Amino acid sequence: MTQNIYDDPDFFEGYSQLQRSIDGLAGAAEWPSMRAMLPELHGLDIVDLGCGFGWFCRWAREHGASGILGLDVSDNMLARAQAETEGEGIRYAKADLENLQLPAAAFDLVYSSLAFHYIRNFAGLLATIHQALKPGGRLIFSIEHPIYMAPRRPDWLVDAEGYKTWPLDSYQMEGPRVTNWLAEGVVKQHRTMGTTLNLLIGSGFRIMHVEEWTPTDEDLAMYPDRVIERERPMFLLISTLKPSY
Amino acid sequence: MTQNIYDDPDFFEGYSQLQRSIDGLAGAAEWPSMRAMLPELHGLDIVDLGCGFGWFCRWAREHGASGILGLDVSDNMLARAQAETEGEGIRYAKADLENLQLPAAAFDLVYSSLAFHYIRNFAGLLATIHQALKPGGRLIFSIEHPIYMAPRRPDWLVDAEGYKTWPLDSYQMEGPRVTNWLAEGVVKQHRTMGTTLNLLIGSGFRIMHVEEWTPTDEDLAMYPDRVIERERPMFLLISTLKPSY
Repeated sequence: MTQNIYDDPDFFEGYSQLQRSIDGLAGAAEWPSMRAMLPELHGLDIVDLGCGFGWFCRWAREHGASGILGLDVSDNMLARAQAETEGEGIRYAKADLENLQLPAAAFDLVYSSLAFHYIRNFAGLLATIHQALKPGGRLIFSIEHPIYMAPRRPDWLVDAEGYKTWPLDSYQMEGPRVTNWLAEGVVKQHRTMGTTLNLLIGSGFRIMHVEEWTPTDEDLAMYPDRVIERERPMFLLISTLKPSY
Repeated sequence: MTQNIYDDPDFFEGYSQLQRSIDGLAGAAEWPSMRAMLPELHGLDIVDLGCGFGWFCRWAREHGASGILGLDVSDNMLARAQAETEGEGIRYAKADLENLQLPAAAFDLVYSSLAFHYIRNFAGLLATIHQALKPGGRLIFSIEHPIYMAPRRPDWLVDAEGYKTWPLDSYQMEGPRVTNWLAEGVVKQHRTMGTTLNLLIGSGFRIMHVEEWTPTDEDLAMYPDRVIERERPMFLLISTLKPSY
């Protein structure tokens, strides 16, 4: 069973106050990059793994998707999604991504935002996703970047001249990382870039685009604090295809 | 024109004393991983871009390759290659990888070890390689890992408890990196993982395997000092395919 931090009251309270929880997709720095990787959604059948409050599900519906299934392990998230982002063609349901079952060849797009880095059995999840995609379908997802997750102490160091550096270590030591983000003892699963890409390739996906999110000049004009994000990548966005032969 | 550091006397003197220069392929920590990515070489036509002393060219010949073209920009390297690793089916020639020309559909395998991180016009080089490969051919190469290349000060920091961390910064700021490795003013070209992969995909290559080299347990038994290499990746190895349709 996935660690369900979103039903921890402290975590949920903290999460609900993040910019991305208040402003929806517009509050997520990496959303424009995710959006740019998406195909034309008109008429597509979509599943969103770790749908949270359902912002993406609603957006997909507004952009012509035919049917959208939003899955999440958290009752808190699903309750908010059902209250705030429901609509014709959208269905929300509870699911544990560690033991996910999906119908065969049922979806044109599997979408997931910042959920897969909680998953231990990523190979198993990829097998489930692959069989659930129609030939020619896409898996497009984001995770926390392994450079961001790896270190023993994931926080900036300031050197004698005031430069900030990211103290990378433990990169090749894959496995759980316990952090205190919004609540204590949040467990994430660190995998290297290579492992993530090779698991995708080995599961039958073709790598179409790999983006280590960085703020654009326009981002920095609006949010000058984001300049620190150019020092090391925080998010990893990957677009893949299930070949149609 | 590529910066030709290998014809700088100080650099060449230092390079010639590295373990990989004395022991050949067996002296290169990442060679077993490179070797594991190679196809069966019997009967293949191969070009080695940045062939150095020609260790790989000789190894490929010994493993049944049909014809091997070793290209390097350095007269010093080529002189050593011609003296020490020549053989039937092997041809060495001088070439600048920044302005490379290769015959069309002439090779089954394009191989390159630790050369591409010196190249400014990587997209141009990839276009040249792609047209030079036969359909179904492979490009397999290694570079210094962008995590290794990116920082302002690419050297370990030791914290108060004696832990070593790698002070990552400037990761998203692509472009030249000047280091003093064996000689002063060696210029390398930093590109993110994402940029390298997307340039390959955009050039028509399919990503087959991505390896951020790390020492195995057997490596550590023989070379205990290599344990530090588990903290951050030093080499990036990539295997790609030119699809046959």
